[in-house]
Amino acid sequence: MAGTEPRARPRLPGDSSVTSDGHGRRWRSVTATTLPLTGRPTRVISVPAMAAAVKEKEEKDSEEVDAAETEGRVRAWAAEQAARGRRVALVTSGGTQVPLEARAVRFLENFSSGRRGAASAERLVRAGYAVCFLHRARSAFPWARALPPHGPALLDALRLTPGPPPGVAAAPAALPALLPALREYRRATEAGALLAIEFTALVEYLALLRAAARALAPLGSSVMFYLAAAVSDFYIPVSEMPEHKIQSSEGPLQITMKMVPKMLSPLVREWAPEAFVISFKLETDPQILLDKSRQALEKYRHQVVVANVLESRRTSVIIVTRDSQTPLSLSDEEIAQGMEIEEKIVSYLQGQHTAFIERKG
Amino acid sequence: MAGTEPRARPRLPGDSSVTSDGHGRRWRSVTATTLPLTGRPTRVISVPAMAAAVKEKEEKDSEEVDAAETEGRVRAWAAEQAARGRRVALVTSGGTQVPLEARAVRFLENFSSGRRGAASAERLVRAGYAVCFLHRARSAFPWARALPPHGPALLDALRLTPGPPPGVAAAPAALPALLPALREYRRATEAGALLAIEFTALVEYLALLRAAARALAPLGSSVMFYLAAAVSDFYIPVSEMPEHKIQSSEGPLQITMKMVPKMLSPLVREWAPEAFVISFKLETDPQILLDKSRQALEKYRHQVVVANVLESRRTSVIIVTRDSQTPLSLSDEEIAQGMEIEEKIVSYLQGQHTAFIERKG
Repeated sequence: MAGTEPRARPRLPGDSSVTSDGHGRRWRSVTATTLPLTGRPTRVISVPAMAAAVKEKEEKDSEEVDAAETEGRVRAWAAEQAARGRRVALVTSGGTQVPLEARAVRFLENFSSGRRGAASAERLVRAGYAVCFLHRARSAFPWARALPPHGPALLDALRLTPGPPPGVAAAPAALPALLPALREYRRATEAGALLAIEFTALVEYLALLRAAARALAPLGSSVMFYLAAAVSDFYIPVSEMPEHKIQSSEGPLQITMKMVPKMLSPLVREWAPEAFVISFKLETDPQILLDKSRQALEKYRHQVVVANVLESRRTSVIIVTRDSQTPLSLSDEEIAQGMEIEEKIVSYLQGQHTAFIERKG
Repeated sequence: MAGTEPRARPRLPGDSSVTSDGHGRRWRSVTATTLPLTGRPTRVISVPAMAAAVKEKEEKDSEEVDAAETEGRVRAWAAEQAARGRRVALVTSGGTQVPLEARAVRFLENFSSGRRGAASAERLVRAGYAVCFLHRARSAFPWARALPPHGPALLDALRLTPGPPPGVAAAPAALPALLPALREYRRATEAGALLAIEFTALVEYLALLRAAARALAPLGSSVMFYLAAAVSDFYIPVSEMPEHKIQSSEGPLQITMKMVPKMLSPLVREWAPEAFVISFKLETDPQILLDKSRQALEKYRHQVVVANVLESRRTSVIIVTRDSQTPLSLSDEEIAQGMEIEEKIVSYLQGQHTAFIERKG
């Protein structure tokens, strides 16, 4: 196999190979070897050039990701929240982006609108938590969900007001959803109960999660990690990526990706060992869902897995702990009333978190 | 090689294989064989179940993509534009999404914010064209670009107005960008000069491009195809995709992708043979850019390639035709004034289009 044959020399950045499969077809392969991603917990993960490239292309004006700066910011914010007697939740949300080329034109993306994370963050704030919202740039955002999607629907929801001076106002039809959302958003931000941090690339997510986890660790058992982001399981190390855009004229594409180390392990063992940690498991095959959830609890030693199946994730989940499994679901009536499953999830987990704090205390 | 060994029976949907590479490592592979994508131009491309699944997950309420419905809609709109003596441009914009699983959780994405397409559409409307804007859902949209990105920035740009009745207005700081954009958008939509069509999955893009191209073909040389979308070169046929989410617990991932057939060929030869067709070529390696552009013109027999390099694409391009290459770029002064390169691109291409119509006429 082209991607895994012994090699005469170590592969260099930009290396790729073209081989024949013996049936007259030629394959290019990009092969993974060692990885720079994890590092020991005492080292700061540097965000490689690829993250910077992605950010440039995302048209952000912001500076490069500075995990140390983020750690300081979260630490100061967390101390304020603790002083006010608030519990803190770190909610991760949205999917990660994994580049396939060094000057990346193509990416592997995990599906996630970020709806679960955004809806949960709203509910957690309502339940009295201060929420650090670590989310994919441009994914669903708490309360902004009430706005029409960016594009023609948003333009159509705005009206020119003649003035003078001329202005812009929301169309009456948009107000019933928009007014309460804007009010709640204002209340949350004025109370400092929402701290938003953005990521795009997988490496940014990993660096920022670690920074935030360390910053929150001093809060002990009163901090909840609510890990709803859809994190890629696979990536290509920077050192193994082709420098330039992969040329389609050279034939079919074969990509070999390495596994992303699971961050749950260092999170639970080292970064925030006293915290209440909830992970999410999304499967398309209901048959394997509970087994995989239990395996995760065994392996990572955290407190809760919220298990869900792609097709039914909006209306039912199973809350799995080491000694229990609790299905939560919306009735047809609740669905008709516009209730969201996140209301039940957050309410249940808040109770579990209280019990956890009491056991620890 | 696992993905290309002769097989005892045809592979079925959901098939995947686990093999050893002889070095103690195990690989799963997903292998491509034949493809359902192109079809003959007389057949309507049916949009397979994967597109429907993607759409469901994208939280759209809209019906499934109906290429025939779109063809009818574009045809009626185009006839109206022709009756008013307007030239028509079909602008494609944004990146395509390629699922890696049948019930897709992971996708291959091409990088594209859609900025080029959206900015060009604005310029084309100003130049008197009626624009059919075939764009990736949620990518940059003409004039909506003037709004802050969805999320906290957008929420912060809105103010509660006390009333009665209570309302929502744009913050004063947002008005200088928002007012002219909203005015131009209203003018364009009231004149029927903007017809927006959305895609997400690659198969949707292909089906809708063909539908729109056929609908516009009767306009002959007065229609311009401005193909700025970043279309994936690679995909996995539906029949070859694993049914369920690829399990990371089984080790590294190897993906083999087939090449997407280039749509330029049937577009130029069959769907709209009289039209003025412009394609875009984005490379990261400037060395190969012009050669690849000329090769494309030779191969597809269309009129223009707009060639650009990833790093400099915002400030310079080269307009390549069979017998010319014309660099266009922004001066430092023009950049400082906020001018966009699309103004120059559209102005130049409008002139080329006029000459093309005269030659044809």
